[in-house]
Amino acid sequence: MKWDTMLLEENCLKLIDQRKIPQQIEYFRAENYQQVIFAIKEMVVRGAPAIGAAAAHGVYLAARELRELEGDIFVKELEKALQELGNSRPTAVNLIWGIRRMKKVLTSNLDLPRDELLQKLLSAARDIAREDVEINKKLGDIGQEIIPQGAGVLTHCNTGALATVGYGTALGVIRAAHSAGKEISVFVDETRPRLQGARLNAFELKEEGIPATLIVDSTAAVLMREGKVDVIVVGADRIAGNGDTANKIGTFMLSVLARAFEIPFYIAAPVSTIDFDLKSGQEIEIEERDPAEITHWEGKPIAPEGVDVFNPAFDVTPAQNISGIITEKGIIRAPYTEGLTRIKPGGDSN
Amino acid sequence: MKWDTMLLEENCLKLIDQRKIPQQIEYFRAENYQQVIFAIKEMVVRGAPAIGAAAAHGVYLAARELRELEGDIFVKELEKALQELGNSRPTAVNLIWGIRRMKKVLTSNLDLPRDELLQKLLSAARDIAREDVEINKKLGDIGQEIIPQGAGVLTHCNTGALATVGYGTALGVIRAAHSAGKEISVFVDETRPRLQGARLNAFELKEEGIPATLIVDSTAAVLMREGKVDVIVVGADRIAGNGDTANKIGTFMLSVLARAFEIPFYIAAPVSTIDFDLKSGQEIEIEERDPAEITHWEGKPIAPEGVDVFNPAFDVTPAQNISGIITEKGIIRAPYTEGLTRIKPGGDSN
Repeated sequence: MKWDTMLLEENCLKLIDQRKIPQQIEYFRAENYQQVIFAIKEMVVRGAPAIGAAAAHGVYLAARELRELEGDIFVKELEKALQELGNSRPTAVNLIWGIRRMKKVLTSNLDLPRDELLQKLLSAARDIAREDVEINKKLGDIGQEIIPQGAGVLTHCNTGALATVGYGTALGVIRAAHSAGKEISVFVDETRPRLQGARLNAFELKEEGIPATLIVDSTAAVLMREGKVDVIVVGADRIAGNGDTANKIGTFMLSVLARAFEIPFYIAAPVSTIDFDLKSGQEIEIEERDPAEITHWEGKPIAPEGVDVFNPAFDVTPAQNISGIITEKGIIRAPYTEGLTRIKPGGDSN
Repeated sequence: MKWDTMLLEENCLKLIDQRKIPQQIEYFRAENYQQVIFAIKEMVVRGAPAIGAAAAHGVYLAARELRELEGDIFVKELEKALQELGNSRPTAVNLIWGIRRMKKVLTSNLDLPRDELLQKLLSAARDIAREDVEINKKLGDIGQEIIPQGAGVLTHCNTGALATVGYGTALGVIRAAHSAGKEISVFVDETRPRLQGARLNAFELKEEGIPATLIVDSTAAVLMREGKVDVIVVGADRIAGNGDTANKIGTFMLSVLARAFEIPFYIAAPVSTIDFDLKSGQEIEIEERDPAEITHWEGKPIAPEGVDVFNPAFDVTPAQNISGIITEKGIIRAPYTEGLTRIKPGGDSN
């Protein structure tokens, strides 16, 4: 994509404002960690890997803001900031992962002069961002084998360069298949309520020149029945140790339809999206978002006032519905607990 | 509902403007048959039974406009008008049914003085409208037995008073269950792209005081897995002789999910929605609507310009996914060809 999702600058985090695409390409400037929290909560930046990198840079910005404070007070205030950052959205585990990784850098460099500490933190955040792109490219290269020549590929939500620091997870796999010369055609679920499919995924696919057809989410079943979908690939916000996967609402529905029509159903996500602390998907906290995402459109009501709403941002797809989980360490297949344990990073990176 | 869906007046057809609900309650005045066609095409009026009654009154308005013409020219011009009316939307069979019924009245009364003929046509259209409400109430009374006390009921699109002349089909069944004192709770699919669920169904349920929860279409699977949906009931736009049913896009998806979770899945529709001329759903023409329904919101783009779109207004649910078809003549169950043949009207009304 010709635009950067984020720029980790010394004095701010610049984020492409994903609320405004495709109408406008504008950058949101977060100059302190509170503004990073705002950007995550309001979905200026979204997508698990993108949130992870943004939060990492948020840790640097918090340390920068608090740099004049001395010793214990510095640590205490910073702890508070990290807590707040960690609470900005509940489901994407990359958020916690990014903060945890930054905290290690922080803890082991507290003795350094403040300026040097800040330099270390900025480099660490930039490492996370750089690695994310590398990991996605690797994941894409590995994953594209699941996409046959000439395939119809169905995907949900945005999992491209915008959902990450660059390249993308599920959309990275699609991008890699396209680059490898496979003449694929992508069906893009619009992904209600926030329309990340229509606004962001369709936008990236168009930029890239990959043939894509936009549909409302409930049209997917018709395409599957008609034999137009050869493979489904989606991203993840958190994967439990047994392979159960939380992803954008509607993913579970697709997985049930995939089973009914015997279509391979893949998850694509970096290892940082796997939460090895969780035994199963039942332990994943699912964020419920503002009912206005469904009842209103740009402030105007599209449903009767005061109607009850159930608006979970994610759902959990059980491992048994998943054909494979594509990671930068290979494609993991059932039995997932064993497969995921094999790629569990050592204490150092997790 | 405290508002009338339509008023069949002597000099015009007044239609509640369904494009504006719930923000505004406004009536659209169709003073000639061309305006009736506009109203059907633009979905000022929608819902198969409502379209049928509106088209019937359109036939009257056409005859009224052309009343000064003599003999053959009158008949010829009227034929043309009826043809145009019949082509206004392709899937809802009630449209054809309503026009056909009016044509019989026309043909058998052509010898009458023009004023008397017009009176006959106006009465015939009003009969269709009155009967529609009676049929829906009967259908609701018969159908409510499928809804258990305390049930969670999932429905899709609008099938209430607004989709008919009054009361409703699937929503009529829900209304009847509620009136019978069953403490039900309704899950309302918002129904992209036109949001008839959010805008119209939620509106009617709220008016009626029936507990309702609005969801995006792709949340339905989660509720089914959690055991919150005891029964699904939806309407129909055309039912083939073998029970295959065309209804709002997303219906087929629900039927596949219903099978996966072993949830009863019912269609509710008057006999006039059954197209006995069709052997199976494969013969049903599915309307594809303007891509802008998906790519734009009130004129503003929500997808990249020029993206390909697949926007079928309906899909076909195979009879094997249907637990029963609720009509005013009883609940028909498999084998459908036999069951539907039993309730096929004589030559007189069909």
